[in-house]
Formats: sequence, C-alpha cells, structure tokens
Amino acid sequence: MTHATPYTHLPVVPCDAPFLPLVERIRREATVVDNRIVRIDHFLNHRIEPLFMRDLGQAMAERIHRFRPELILTAESSGIAPALATAGVLNLPLVYAKKYAPDNPSPPLARVIASPTRGGQIMLRVAEGYLTPGMRIALVDDFLAQGGTALALADIVAEAGAELVVTGFVVEKQFQDGRAGLVQRGLPIATLARITQLQAGSVIMAGDRA
Amino acid sequence: MTHATPYTHLPVVPCDAPFLPLVERIRREATVVDNRIVRIDHFLNHRIEPLFMRDLGQAMAERIHRFRPELILTAESSGIAPALATAGVLNLPLVYAKKYAPDNPSPPLARVIASPTRGGQIMLRVAEGYLTPGMRIALVDDFLAQGGTALALADIVAEAGAELVVTGFVVEKQFQDGRAGLVQRGLPIATLARITQLQAGSVIMAGDRA
Repeated sequence: MTHATPYTHLPVVPCDAPFLPLVERIRREATVVDNRIVRIDHFLNHRIEPLFMRDLGQAMAERIHRFRPELILTAESSGIAPALATAGVLNLPLVYAKKYAPDNPSPPLARVIASPTRGGQIMLRVAEGYLTPGMRIALVDDFLAQGGTALALADIVAEAGAELVVTGFVVEKQFQDGRAGLVQRGLPIATLARITQLQAGSVIMAGDRA
Repeated sequence: MTHATPYTHLPVVPCDAPFLPLVERIRREATVVDNRIVRIDHFLNHRIEPLFMRDLGQAMAERIHRFRPELILTAESSGIAPALATAGVLNLPLVYAKKYAPDNPSPPLARVIASPTRGGQIMLRVAEGYLTPGMRIALVDDFLAQGGTALALADIVAEAGAELVVTGFVVEKQFQDGRAGLVQRGLPIATLARITQLQAGSVIMAGDRA
C-alpha cells in the first residue's frame, strides 16, 4: 500500500524496518533488570538527547506518513517526546491523553487501564474537542509492551468517531505480545526496534542470529 | 551580565522580554475560568502545535543561553514539550522529574509538593545519576504559578550538588506570586509572557495599558 502523501521529501520506509542507530544503542547501552525490564531511560525516558530524539521522530515519520495521518496522538508522559519529534517532522498537531486517578466518575473519551509501571489502575483521558469525526489519527508511543495503552487509545479514538490509521512504537517488546491485540483490530504497526527476548541479562533483538 | 556562549548564532535577549507571538495568542485565544484559571491547553498542554512549540523553544533559548546551562531540567508532563524544544535549540540533554504517589518512602532527589491541578500531594523525583556535582542546570517549565514545582526542583538540584543557573517559564501568572520565592534564592527568571491579572473573564498581560 503506497498512498501519495504531501511529504514528498520523505522516503517511504516499511513499518517493520529497524532503525539501526536505535538498535545499536539498545544492544550496547540497555540495562536488563530481572530478565523482565529493559532500561533505556538515559535516552528515551527520564533523560532525552534532543538530536537523537529528532532522529527517532524522523525515522517514525518515514514509516507512518503514507497512512496520511492528520494528527498524532500519544499518552503522557513518556510518549510525549517521541510523538512531538514525529509531529514536528510531519508538521501535524499532537494531542496527548492525560492520566488521572481512576476513582473519578467516568467522563467521555476516557478508559481505565492497568498501570504496569505505577501499579494499580489509571484513567487515560483525552480532552474533548481535539479528536473530530473522520479525522485520521496516528498513535505514537515509546513502548509497545502488553498493548493496554494502545488499545485504550484506540477505543477513545473510535468513541470520538475518528479513525486510527496507524500505530507507531519506538521499541516493541515482542515477548509481551501487545502486537496481537492491535493486529486483531487490523491496525498497522510501525516499530523502530524489536526486542525478541531478554536472556541472561542481555537483550536479543529481531534480526539477531540464534 | 553577558557571558560568551557557544551559541554565537543566537541573539542575547533579556529575560523579561515578552515573546510577542505568544502574548498575542494568549490575548486572542485564552479561556478564563472563574477569574482564576487560564486555559491555553490547545497549544501548550493537551494539544501541541510543533512549529509554534519550536518557536517557543527558540525564544526561551535566546533568553537563557548566556547563563551557559549544560542540561535542561523540567517536570512531567506539561513541561516536557517546551523543555524539549528549548533543549533542541541548545543541543543540551533534557532530564525530567517524574511524579509519584507521595506515600512511598522518601528516596534521594525527591520532594513532596502540593498538586494544584490534581489536588492533594505528589512526589517529584529525578532519577539518580543524571544531575552531577557542579553541573550548570536550567529549569524550563510551562507555567510559573505559585512556584512550588520550581522550588522543589531547585532543592533537588542543590541536593545533587549541581547549580541551578536560570529558570525559564513559558507563561508567568504574576497574580500567584511564584516569582518571590525564586527571587529570594537569587535565581534569574526568564518568561515569554506575563499575565498580570484575570479580570471579568479577560486576560490582562504585562505591557497592557491600564
């Protein structure tokens, strides 16, 4: 599928093409905790290098522009930097879902999800008026793990009558299988690096030899 | 005070020089709630226009580069976009404090503050290892209101042995007097727009005629 897009200066890159500078940095610099958690906080969360983040945004834009999004959607906080970098390349507005305590009454455009990083549950909510019916939305986030955030945002987009046309993640943790739920909904998935497995304190990336 | 900086391509702009495109947008587009809350969510929080955010980052960089910061510090979530835009112009790393429930044991580099937007209290924490002794830090955030976040981050910077050399805020709400606490600590304050007063549903900006 190749649509003409207004971004004639951008190459069309397949959704699953690894972005090698990122893959290399994960290989060299990631810390693995308990064979379960991958930490690349020093350039993706907590601490951000603006030029590298700009490169990640460029790589993401090259993989998603052919779906002709009109708005980039993400969730606070760790999605904001990669989504803003992507939105900057495509010159599209960015909207982010905010997180609230789940004990509020259930407002429009909100979903309660499990929060693996914080524990317990959290309510994701998109402010009203920014997602309009028929609008083509691209979701951009830092990690695809179990997919809870992505599915909740997909529900919110549907509730607004808008159309989720592509999802993009800087890093996919394939061993947590968030991909399945998105594929089931027919959503294209762009990823810049895919971690197949965590083993003996090391990261095994898609494309590594067995 | 004018230090030579590596940013010879950037003009040196006084800290209190209004950034007129922002001042104009606030005048035209801000919504005032209860003569107390100013909403410019549609371009500063919730929804972000990347090109305008880049302009804000450029304007902030022009006001703070002469303090020769080595790192930009902010707090999640709404500080991330303006801080990243500023860090991008200066090509400096960005670190952001994350927010946690305050009922955890008190770790290093953390401070509990009141949370006017969420209600109750929240713990701001900077991950260890990113602020190093002697490092020159610039704080960049979206709003200066009562100054609680800025003072907590100043304390965290001091705990790390680093030096807070300048603070920068996209919008100052002068009627909430956060400035006093920062001035008392001798901190320079850069602002792009100053709201003097909210009156009968309108925003009175610094420089407006009485």
